[in-house]
Amino acid sequence: MQKRIEVLDKGFVELEDVFGGDGIAIKTARISYMSRSDPEGDKKLVKTLMMNGHESPFEHIVFTFYVKAPIFVARQWFRHRIGSFSERSGRFTEFEEEFYVPDKTRAGEKVESMRTAMHNAFETYKSLLKSGIKREVARMVLPMSLYTQWYWTVNARSLMNFLNLRTDKHAQYEIREYAMAIAKFFSESCPLTYDAFVRYAYKGNVLEV
Amino acid sequence: MQKRIEVLDKGFVELEDVFGGDGIAIKTARISYMSRSDPEGDKKLVKTLMMNGHESPFEHIVFTFYVKAPIFVARQWFRHRIGSFSERSGRFTEFEEEFYVPDKTRAGEKVESMRTAMHNAFETYKSLLKSGIKREVARMVLPMSLYTQWYWTVNARSLMNFLNLRTDKHAQYEIREYAMAIAKFFSESCPLTYDAFVRYAYKGNVLEV
Amino acid sequence: MQKRIEVLDKGFVELEDVFGGDGIAIKTARISYMSRSDPEGDKKLVKTLMMNGHESPFEHIVFTFYVKAPIFVARQWFRHRIGSFSERSGRFTEFEEEFYVPDKTRAGEKVESMRTAMHNAFETYKSLLKSGIKREVARMVLPMSLYTQWYWTVNARSLMNFLNLRTDKHAQYEIREYAMAIAKFFSESCPLTYDAFVRYAYKGNVLEV
Amino acid sequence: MQKRIEVLDKGFVELEDVFGGDGIAIKTARISYMSRSDPEGDKKLVKTLMMNGHESPFEHIVFTFYVKAPIFVARQWFRHRIGSFSERSGRFTEFEEEFYVPDKTRAGEKVESMRTAMHNAFETYKSLLKSGIKREVARMVLPMSLYTQWYWTVNARSLMNFLNLRTDKHAQYEIREYAMAIAKFFSESCPLTYDAFVRYAYKGNVLEV
Repeated sequence: MQKRIEVLDKGFVELEDVFGGDGIAIKTARISYMSRSDPEGDKKLVKTLMMNGHESPFEHIVFTFYVKAPIFVARQWFRHRIGSFSERSGRFTEFEEEFYVPDKTRAGEKVESMRTAMHNAFETYKSLLKSGIKREVARMVLPMSLYTQWYWTVNARSLMNFLNLRTDKHAQYEIREYAMAIAKFFSESCPLTYDAFVRYAYKGNVLEV
Repeated sequence: MQKRIEVLDKGFVELEDVFGGDGIAIKTARISYMSRSDPEGDKKLVKTLMMNGHESPFEHIVFTFYVKAPIFVARQWFRHRIGSFSERSGRFTEFEEEFYVPDKTRAGEKVESMRTAMHNAFETYKSLLKSGIKREVARMVLPMSLYTQWYWTVNARSLMNFLNLRTDKHAQYEIREYAMAIAKFFSESCPLTYDAFVRYAYKGNVLEV
Repeated sequence: MQKRIEVLDKGFVELEDVFGGDGIAIKTARISYMSRSDPEGDKKLVKTLMMNGHESPFEHIVFTFYVKAPIFVARQWFRHRIGSFSERSGRFTEFEEEFYVPDKTRAGEKVESMRTAMHNAFETYKSLLKSGIKREVARMVLPMSLYTQWYWTVNARSLMNFLNLRTDKHAQYEIREYAMAIAKFFSESCPLTYDAFVRYAYKGNVLEV
Repeated sequence: MQKRIEVLDKGFVELEDVFGGDGIAIKTARISYMSRSDPEGDKKLVKTLMMNGHESPFEHIVFTFYVKAPIFVARQWFRHRIGSFSERSGRFTEFEEEFYVPDKTRAGEKVESMRTAMHNAFETYKSLLKSGIKREVARMVLPMSLYTQWYWTVNARSLMNFLNLRTDKHAQYEIREYAMAIAKFFSESCPLTYDAFVRYAYKGNVLEV
């Protein structure tokens, strides 16, 4: 399995680790019935759980991702409350000049104008730091296109909710690109669950089996 | 009770509504023992709950606040996952030129330099919108000092956790100012609970009874 | 509005209080767009939110219920984790002889046999207490049909999830009866939200507009 | 590491799997500072996090346990909402005659009296099933000492809250025995975290380093 997927101009999603996979969802679902696993029945079971909205067995599958993304993407992402975030601090670290600069399809002829504005903001940031202003104050001038990074630990049920909202044409393009990377890692590590999700429970309009 | 507390240069906290108060915490705590309320015993009960870390009765007290604060403050605030947020959207609305500009105690001689940087960013934002760039793209150049606004519904237990972390000298000055406003509304609407919290369960180093 | 609905042979649901109602959902949803309320638009807004799965504004509506129900119903109910429970304690209080005895439609000719079994268990409980055994030990012989009581504070989003699962023919009859009472209080206190929920977002097969 | 710990007369806790361990807490905590791991600093970091109540890095450590315990213990356990439960169903499976019978230290001379009461209840259960009553109805006569089983997936932060409340002399003896088994698995799989927890953050009065 690929470990890192590049996203946007300087970002990425890395799968740090996955815990359980299809197997643990099947095992924990079967305890309701005290029944044993068999390959044929397992596939059917996952389908049935997904169709009937019995999503709690999927909570036992847990992922940790390492993400690098612009702050406006982080803002949308962190609204998903069921999961754990550990993020780089703008109080304890100094930022590098790493901004997301949208390309022509997004910013048309204004790409350079945006790049310049971001660069100017960064120059101010540097000069503030140089004159002894605290990092936590200086960063206030930095734009929302600044790249940040974080760890995200999330169970498969909450991840599916994330995909329902973020792999959808109504989601902003930039977070959708990240969500597509998350979906790819999900499909590779939990093929049965992913397939049943997209067929029977998915509410978005982008993913396909 | 005062309904709005001004915070920083252009922000505020409004208490939209409070649900229950001291009474509901006492009532729900007493169900464990099937005992009846009496004024003397109530105060002692709240103290005992707080000292022993039995915080679940305080979950039945619920607040809704309306907050206007800079985005870097919102970023810290939204990390508190137990609670509900509804925020103004930068995709569906156009921002006004409203930035938090720190004063001399924070930015020394650099106040004007910061104000100028923010103004320049806003000029770019306006020119991007004028040339037809989408709001969701144009806002990427806006700095984290931009004011946003949101509703926050939170129970008293989660609110006390917020105060533990944010009314503390280790918290950044700006969010601490907001947290002080939250504490004031809390103390006025739930005097018994607030008093017991600060005396027996508070982990910060700023609040006093 | 009716304050108490009787459920099963000795149970009930009481609406202790409701916070916000349709109005707060509309108000908090409108902040995204910074738009103002108008009666015609409000109804349409609630419908749109519900159809598109934008359920966070409904988190600002909060209910507190007081419930008396058998322990096997409580066990199913408490699985709904987003919400606050304060329950009578079997360690700190002594139970009365109050059991749910299913009627003929559930227990056929065995009604009396069940009643006798429950009564015998209660006789043992009393004799254990009399001989000085602790309440927390003596209650181990009591059956799951024993009535208990609790406060439940829950927001409307979580309440709708509860209704999706519990007002459904697959739910056990007894908890379904309680869920019908919850639905009735919900419909009376939030008519717009309830109507939109049942029309556009409800996954069960029992409720009707 | 031992995989199963026997608890009470017929119960147990099994560690199904653990995700991350001390290493992931250290790694995710270090992202705040963008600093690198070193053995000496790691131990100090864990101590500092624990002393200052910075518990979010510990959310990235995840455990799955398999537990067999009486229903009255399950009732206390399931009150811990941050975590995932998948439990055997009394609607879809038929129970065996497996009850927790407290020993003399708990029930004195009444041990046999309790055993008989439980056996009689089980005889009624069997006769109800035999006459065609549904499992979901018949089980209403079964006492709370009945053994059930479930999977529990929980992060280390929530697990520490569980230990704060359940490895304490105020907790009921039976759940405390289970909590001691959980603590043992925790100490063996995350020695640094466990040691710092007991020294600097533990609120109970039973665990020792």
